[in-house]
Amino acid sequence: MKLKNDRLLKALLREPVDRTPVWIMRQAGRYLPEYLATRAEAGSFMQLCQTPELACEVTLQPLRRYDLDAAIIFSDILTIPDAMGLGLYFVTGEGPKFERPLSSRAEIEALPRPDISDSLRYVTDAVSLTRREIGGKVPLLGFSGSPWTLATYMIEGGSSKTFGKAKRLLYQDPNTAHVLLGKLAETVTDYLNAQIEAGAQGVQIFDTWGGALSFDAYREFSLSYMQQIVDGLKREHDGRKIPVILFSKGCNTQLEALADSGCDALGVDWTIALSEARRRVGDRVALQGNLDPSILLADPDVIRREVRRTLESFGPGEGHVFNLGHGITPDVDPDHLQALIAAVAEFSPALHRGN
Amino acid sequence: MKLKNDRLLKALLREPVDRTPVWIMRQAGRYLPEYLATRAEAGSFMQLCQTPELACEVTLQPLRRYDLDAAIIFSDILTIPDAMGLGLYFVTGEGPKFERPLSSRAEIEALPRPDISDSLRYVTDAVSLTRREIGGKVPLLGFSGSPWTLATYMIEGGSSKTFGKAKRLLYQDPNTAHVLLGKLAETVTDYLNAQIEAGAQGVQIFDTWGGALSFDAYREFSLSYMQQIVDGLKREHDGRKIPVILFSKGCNTQLEALADSGCDALGVDWTIALSEARRRVGDRVALQGNLDPSILLADPDVIRREVRRTLESFGPGEGHVFNLGHGITPDVDPDHLQALIAAVAEFSPALHRGN
Repeated sequence: MKLKNDRLLKALLREPVDRTPVWIMRQAGRYLPEYLATRAEAGSFMQLCQTPELACEVTLQPLRRYDLDAAIIFSDILTIPDAMGLGLYFVTGEGPKFERPLSSRAEIEALPRPDISDSLRYVTDAVSLTRREIGGKVPLLGFSGSPWTLATYMIEGGSSKTFGKAKRLLYQDPNTAHVLLGKLAETVTDYLNAQIEAGAQGVQIFDTWGGALSFDAYREFSLSYMQQIVDGLKREHDGRKIPVILFSKGCNTQLEALADSGCDALGVDWTIALSEARRRVGDRVALQGNLDPSILLADPDVIRREVRRTLESFGPGEGHVFNLGHGITPDVDPDHLQALIAAVAEFSPALHRGN
Repeated sequence: MKLKNDRLLKALLREPVDRTPVWIMRQAGRYLPEYLATRAEAGSFMQLCQTPELACEVTLQPLRRYDLDAAIIFSDILTIPDAMGLGLYFVTGEGPKFERPLSSRAEIEALPRPDISDSLRYVTDAVSLTRREIGGKVPLLGFSGSPWTLATYMIEGGSSKTFGKAKRLLYQDPNTAHVLLGKLAETVTDYLNAQIEAGAQGVQIFDTWGGALSFDAYREFSLSYMQQIVDGLKREHDGRKIPVILFSKGCNTQLEALADSGCDALGVDWTIALSEARRRVGDRVALQGNLDPSILLADPDVIRREVRRTLESFGPGEGHVFNLGHGITPDVDPDHLQALIAAVAEFSPALHRGN
């Protein structure tokens, strides 16, 4: 089925487009009443992730409301550790937890390399189904957590403020940390390639906790494994390039190194001006971002002004994908996201040659 | 009383020293059993802060154990909003809370400018007492939270992950935000000047949540108010310069602007290499930092290696104060901090002209 809107894929490859494409991290999420209804119907967050029809349904919901330029498959970043046997569960108000967090070298060595076509079949089934249901309207993105970000949850047993246990492993026993991160890099590669085979037309790696690491530790324990994944991904499928986006939150001191990783685009948070980020990465990669999600809590006229400011900070030319600098929060009024999307459509055409 | 060890004050002013001075953010804290004993004796954290003899005692405790080059007065960053009438209290495991968070322009306009010599007398009394008790062994630092960081707690009513309410105010009603931040900047100036009058020999402003702001919002709502404070501080007392340190966590994209603020030194977190931070600020300011606090969870040989690496990243020459990139955590073994301090003493003399 022909892709009717390839604005996102073009922008990620820095090809000319008529206007800046826009999608929103966590666009299928709790700020949407229809999402909450489907989640209630599913019974639990895990059931929602693990039932392809329901995951497909919530993936499509934001496309029915908004003129978005991409869908991203609804799933959780912790599906991989769950498939490795750690026992993912959710406690309301406390976030994700693992029944069996990692606490020894022996446990890390015993971790299996999951057979994606078996234990993560529910994700690739959701991808195939959603790709079919979208009917070529917009591209579908796949995603995974980065090895380091997955490792933090696997070692801490859940969310953490300071990542003390995970970092202690890196510093105290780097060899064991490398065993774990190497296994995760292999599995993430398998997982993203399986999503691409199933129909994902681009992929994003979420390195949510990259910014917790020191400058040197980030290179050794996070970036090098994302690089290994980028090297192992199928970069073409069905005759079309598959763009790869890396998003390391809080890692603006690493932009140059990230741009040299071989990925196509970098997600950028709001602590750097896009003009400065663009100057630093040059024409090596596209940039995705970077509106502060909290701006969606303000009124539509404020949102409009800040969207315009963000577009103008990137400036004229190709290689910008509009997004937030992190996921949309549950307290956002859905009409406010509408205002954001309308402002991108209004202000961005003037910035593009393809117009 | 003559100051016997002025290594810290010299290093903050980029004057020659025999070795790199070291102090540790939150050095009087929960990782020390003697601190826990005094806190238990006080009955509550607030009582500990508000009783000058006890605040003095815990300020001095780390100096008895370690060869530190400074003391920092024991207090809390939220004393100012408490003095403005918001009703600070602590819930174990949940951090600080306010009984009466700010929710309207009228409440912000009604906020008083506290008379420091009355409502914050317990802090200046603790400073005078501690200065006397230290007996010139090392200098005593005073501190305050930054206006933006104080404002987040005052609007959110406590800690926050995303600062949605506080940021909504900035974007939706910047005029009201400026009224609040302006009042806080005046009060912080009064407060730090009162600490200097009482005997503080240097001061640090903690902008713990500066990194939550976008690049532009940081300049408008955080940096400009810190600058206003720096401009209003007594920079000399009793014939000696009073160095001013700004610490904006997660704001490495702002280092150049921070260096132009008129302060003497910048605290730096561990997401940037000190070599790069030094290159960017040039000889405008000294740098303080930047070991990842989690390194103190590893064994002494690892700590030794990472201290050396941090010192060498700054490199030869003046203007480095060794510290962590954020506060020491309660789970640290006190002997591990000893290893850090010993390593600074061992490796740093070779880097200094004053040696």
